[in-house]
Amino acid sequence: MTVSNQTVQAVDTEIERLEESMIQFLSTLVEKRTVTGNERAGQEVMANKFESLGAAVDRWEPNPERLRGHSGYFETSTFEEVGYGGRPNVGARLDGVGEGNSLGLSGHIDVVSVTEREWDSDPWTLVRDDDRLIGRGSCDMKGGIAAYVTAVEALQAANVDLEGDLVLQSTIEEEAGGVGGVLSALERGYRPDAAVIPEPLDIPHIGTASAGVMYFRITVPGRTAHAGRAYAGVNALDKAVLLLQSLNDLDETRKGRIDYPRAYRADRRLEGHVTNLNIGVIDGGEWPSTVPGEVTLEGRIGWPPGETREQVRKEIRRTISNVATRDEWLAEHPPELSWFGWQAEPHEVPLDSRIARVSKTAAEDVTGNEGQFVGGHAGMDERFYKNYYDINAVSVGPYGENLHGPNEHTTVTSLTDTAKTLARIIMYYCGVASD
Amino acid sequence: MTVSNQTVQAVDTEIERLEESMIQFLSTLVEKRTVTGNERAGQEVMANKFESLGAAVDRWEPNPERLRGHSGYFETSTFEEVGYGGRPNVGARLDGVGEGNSLGLSGHIDVVSVTEREWDSDPWTLVRDDDRLIGRGSCDMKGGIAAYVTAVEALQAANVDLEGDLVLQSTIEEEAGGVGGVLSALERGYRPDAAVIPEPLDIPHIGTASAGVMYFRITVPGRTAHAGRAYAGVNALDKAVLLLQSLNDLDETRKGRIDYPRAYRADRRLEGHVTNLNIGVIDGGEWPSTVPGEVTLEGRIGWPPGETREQVRKEIRRTISNVATRDEWLAEHPPELSWFGWQAEPHEVPLDSRIARVSKTAAEDVTGNEGQFVGGHAGMDERFYKNYYDINAVSVGPYGENLHGPNEHTTVTSLTDTAKTLARIIMYYCGVASD
Repeated sequence: MTVSNQTVQAVDTEIERLEESMIQFLSTLVEKRTVTGNERAGQEVMANKFESLGAAVDRWEPNPERLRGHSGYFETSTFEEVGYGGRPNVGARLDGVGEGNSLGLSGHIDVVSVTEREWDSDPWTLVRDDDRLIGRGSCDMKGGIAAYVTAVEALQAANVDLEGDLVLQSTIEEEAGGVGGVLSALERGYRPDAAVIPEPLDIPHIGTASAGVMYFRITVPGRTAHAGRAYAGVNALDKAVLLLQSLNDLDETRKGRIDYPRAYRADRRLEGHVTNLNIGVIDGGEWPSTVPGEVTLEGRIGWPPGETREQVRKEIRRTISNVATRDEWLAEHPPELSWFGWQAEPHEVPLDSRIARVSKTAAEDVTGNEGQFVGGHAGMDERFYKNYYDINAVSVGPYGENLHGPNEHTTVTSLTDTAKTLARIIMYYCGVASD
Repeated sequence: MTVSNQTVQAVDTEIERLEESMIQFLSTLVEKRTVTGNERAGQEVMANKFESLGAAVDRWEPNPERLRGHSGYFETSTFEEVGYGGRPNVGARLDGVGEGNSLGLSGHIDVVSVTEREWDSDPWTLVRDDDRLIGRGSCDMKGGIAAYVTAVEALQAANVDLEGDLVLQSTIEEEAGGVGGVLSALERGYRPDAAVIPEPLDIPHIGTASAGVMYFRITVPGRTAHAGRAYAGVNALDKAVLLLQSLNDLDETRKGRIDYPRAYRADRRLEGHVTNLNIGVIDGGEWPSTVPGEVTLEGRIGWPPGETREQVRKEIRRTISNVATRDEWLAEHPPELSWFGWQAEPHEVPLDSRIARVSKTAAEDVTGNEGQFVGGHAGMDERFYKNYYDINAVSVGPYGENLHGPNEHTTVTSLTDTAKTLARIIMYYCGVASD
C-alpha cells in the first residue's frame, strides 16, 4: 500500500467535487426502471458512462447454451419468463500502466419490482431528503454503481496512473440468481485477480461470504373425491401438513446445529437464524366441494458456508422420505421434489486475503469506524468469482435501508464514503505508478 | 288411488312404445351441452316439447332483484360469473279436468362440465351400449326429464284425463344451487300441491330429504418478511395449519355426534359420513423467499336435516375463534370468515305425506323391489318447495353412475321404469277422471 497521503487526499477532493454529479448519475439510473428482465435502458446508460471513461465497451447477451454445462448454472426465473434476448451485460477494461494486480468492479443493474402504493414517493424518481436518497435501487445497488463510477472518474481527474488493469462491468439478473450476469461475464473472460461488488453491506463492514440459496417445489399427491364421499379420497392437504411440520422441525434442528458468526456480526438479530427454511407458497385443490387431489409447496432454503448444495438437498430429501415412509398413502404415492430457480452455493473469502484486508483498511480509514467481516446470510454474485474461478470477491458498499421494500434508501454521506473507499481499494490493490 | 289396472296397463304399454322416442329425446338434450350458465339451447328443446304436449309455454329469466330478499337466496357462482341474462327457465301448465291435487314435475337442464380426456366416448353424444346410456347428463338429470316427458306423453296417448293440474318445468343452475331455477319458479307462482323431481336416486328408493350445503372462505393473516429474516414476519401458513387441524377435529366430532339413517339406507358406505367438512382449496404466499403474509382456505360443510344454517355457521365461527384466542398473533389479527356460493339449508319431507307414500308404492310396483326412503346427503332443489312454501317434494328417478364424473350413465330399463313410476304417481296423486 505504497500510495501517498497526498494522492489519497487529491482523489478524495475530486470525489467531493463530483458528489452532485454522482447523485445525478444515480438519479438517471433509478429512472430507468430496470426490473430484472428489463435491464436494457439502464445498460445503455452504463455503456455510455464506460465510454466516457475512455474504455472500449463490450455489450453481450448471455448465451444459455454455453452456460448450461457450467456447475454454477441454473435456469433463472427471469430466463424462463423472458429469455436473455435484449438483456445485454456491459463490460469494459481500463488498462493499467504496469504489471499490478487487476481488479474487477462489478454491479448489477437490475432491481426488484415495486408496490407503488406502499411508497411515500415515486419509486422511479430519486428523491433527496436531507442526507437521504430514496428510490428503487438507490442502495441495491445503483448507489454502489454510481460510487464506483465516481471513484474511477476521480482517479482519472486526479491523474492517478494505476499499475494494474480495471475491469468495469454492469450485469443483469442478480436478483434472479446472476447466472446470465456475473457468471456470463466470467465465462466471457473477465477474470481479474480480485473483485469488489459495491452491494449495500454498509462500510466499514466488508462482505466476505454469501449464503447458499435454493428454491424447491414439493408436489403432494392425493386422490380427489366429492366432499360428501371424502372417505373415498385422500386429502392431499392433510398430507402436505405432515410435510410442513417435518420441514419446520428440520428448520429448527438446523438452526440449533448451524452457526456462522460472520452472518450476524453486524446485526445481532440474525443470531440463531443463519440458516432458514421457508415454505413461501402453497397451492392446492380445485373447488370447495372436492377433496384436494394435489397440493404444491414452494420453498426456499438458505444457509451459510459449510454445506454443499448436495448435502442440503439430501437433508431435505431425507426429511420428505421419512414422512412418506411413515404414511401409508405417501409410501405408495411419494411426494415429488424438484429444484427450480435459485440454486446458489455459499462462498467464503479468506479473511487474510489481500482484497479483504485492503478493503477493510480502506473502509475504516474513510469512515473512521471499526469494520467487521460480515456476510453469509444472502445469496450473492460474489460466489461465482470464488467458487468457480478462485477469485476473491468482496462486497464493499453503502448503507441501505428497505432493500426490496418500499422507500428503499441510502445516504449521500454513505455513497461518498463508498466512492472514497473504492478509490483507495483500487489504488492499494492495483498499485499507483506515479507514487 | 282409484286407478284401474287396465288404465295403468294401457299407460305402461304406451311408455314401452315410446321407449325409442324417449332415448332420442334424451340424446337431443345431451347434445345441447348445457353446462350451468349455458342452458339456453336445452331450454329451447324443452319449450318445444312442452308446446307439443299442448301447453302454453312460459319462458322467463330469473330476476335477481326480486329474489335477493328471499331467505333461500344466495348469490350463486354462475350468477356471479355470467349473470342470469340468456338463461331462461321454462314452465308450462296442463290443466286437469277436475279438482284433483296439482303436481309439479321439475327437472334441471344444466349439467356439470366435463374433462373430455377422461371419457371413453364423446360426453356430448349419447352412446347406447346394450342397456347402458352414456353421456353427460344421461342420469343427472336429462334422463329423468326425458322420463317425465314420456310419462306425460303416454298419459295423453292413453287418453287419461287427470283430475288435477300438472306443472311442468325445466330449470337452470341446480348444480350451482338452484336459486335462479326452482326458487325463481316458485316465486313466479308455480306452486303445486306437491312436486316430484326425477333426480337419479335409483327407484324404488325415494328421496325425501336433502343436505345442507354451505361454502366458506377463511382468510388467515400473517406478516410478510424475507425468508432470511423470517423472525420478523408471521407465517400465515403455520397459522392456517392450526385452523385446519381444528376444523378436522370439528369434522370428527360432528361425525361422531350426528346420525341420519336415511342418508345411508341405500348406501352403507355413507354411514358415519352424513356430515362432512372439507377444505377443498388452499392458496397462499407469493414467492418461495417470502414468508407468506396471507393464506386463504375454501371449504364446504354438508349436513343432514337437524341443524339450521345459522347453527352450523356458529359452530364453525366458534372453532375458528377458539383457535384465534389461543394464538397470540391471531388473537390480535383474527382470521376472516365469509360465506359464498352454496348456502343451502337441509330439508325433509314427512314419510307419511301422501306424495312420499304414493311415490314409494308406485316405484315398488313398477320395479318389483322394496324401496327405501333415502336422502339427506346432497344439497337439492327439493328444499325450496318444502322449506319456504311447505310443499312436499320428493326425488323419484333412475339409476345413475358416475354423476359429475367421466362416463356418466344410466340404463334404458331404469329410464323406462322411471317413466312408468312417474305416470303412476301422476295418476294416483292427481286422480284420473275416466276411471
